[in-house]
Amino acid sequence: MVLTEEDFNAMEKLDRVQLATTLPGPKPICLVGTRSNEGATNLAPFSSITHLGSTPILMGMVTRPDTVERHTLQNIIDTGSWTLNHVTSGMVKQAHQCSARYPGSEFEATGLNEIYHDGIIAPFVEESAVRFALELEDLVDIPSNGTKLIVGRVIFAEVPDTDLDLIKAGTLASTALDTYFSLNEVARLPYARP
Amino acid sequence: MVLTEEDFNAMEKLDRVQLATTLPGPKPICLVGTRSNEGATNLAPFSSITHLGSTPILMGMVTRPDTVERHTLQNIIDTGSWTLNHVTSGMVKQAHQCSARYPGSEFEATGLNEIYHDGIIAPFVEESAVRFALELEDLVDIPSNGTKLIVGRVIFAEVPDTDLDLIKAGTLASTALDTYFSLNEVARLPYARP
Repeated sequence: MVLTEEDFNAMEKLDRVQLATTLPGPKPICLVGTRSNEGATNLAPFSSITHLGSTPILMGMVTRPDTVERHTLQNIIDTGSWTLNHVTSGMVKQAHQCSARYPGSEFEATGLNEIYHDGIIAPFVEESAVRFALELEDLVDIPSNGTKLIVGRVIFAEVPDTDLDLIKAGTLASTALDTYFSLNEVARLPYARP
Repeated sequence: MVLTEEDFNAMEKLDRVQLATTLPGPKPICLVGTRSNEGATNLAPFSSITHLGSTPILMGMVTRPDTVERHTLQNIIDTGSWTLNHVTSGMVKQAHQCSARYPGSEFEATGLNEIYHDGIIAPFVEESAVRFALELEDLVDIPSNGTKLIVGRVIFAEVPDTDLDLIKAGTLASTALDTYFSLNEVARLPYARP
């Protein structure tokens, strides 16, 4: 079926959000770990994580200033530090629950365990098989709708193996704000030449 | 195993690219359809597609100015128009082949079929079950490494159903520059409350 901008505008807001967050296709889903200047920890699910470069390794993620994610943004601005922790099937319910508006730490609220590494302010999630830490490089305004791209440099990673296999790691994909997928490899293709 | 920034710097470039493009986890994979002012069509695979907002529906995608993707960027700047077409298992080899540096159109080179809709300059991919068109809203510089975020407003979509089911549509996920995954739903969870 065909949908035009008029159809989008006529949809119920939740239906439009569902469609808009499904159209890009499957997305990453990580828990973002941060810590405030006062030491309060925070965990928030983000699906807008994008690779930006490899030398150095840079990643971007999108945040809205007006949501629960503002703890995450404020902590990143204050400390320059955050972690990304892959969501796996064994922890999907706890990870999803981190999107609720808790007054305190999502670690305490969900029972996920925080661990630390020397020299890194932000907490890691023990239950994640793949986790890495970033340092703030840039905060880029997206004028169209007031969102921001948070750009970070990867300074540390903990992975099962350098040849990182997402299926072995149990990493999930996501879509919309509510759906999680496991993965089956259908193709690994050589570098394409004409 | 633990990897520090020193370890990243010491890796062979291809190994570092592989790790850096795998760390975010599974990503979308779409063919970007564009057309030059002279009418030459272009198709390029992009995995950096991110939802930015729902009212209106905005999406971002990242481009490097120094790669084959420059045709895509130049065509978008010239015409303001592009399409995103989900990669499905039936067309994964042709879609991957679109990353090769062809002098002419990737439609001709790969055998994928182009179709058009009234009022939209850019071509759609007939083989995609989910495809949509965007209009350029913003081109945002990312100072850290010279990449750009191309921001577009979704003006048209063709989907199997408004309740878009990525598994039924056969949409794939991707990781790194070479690996494609099909999806299994493991959870669909209600809106989280404390």
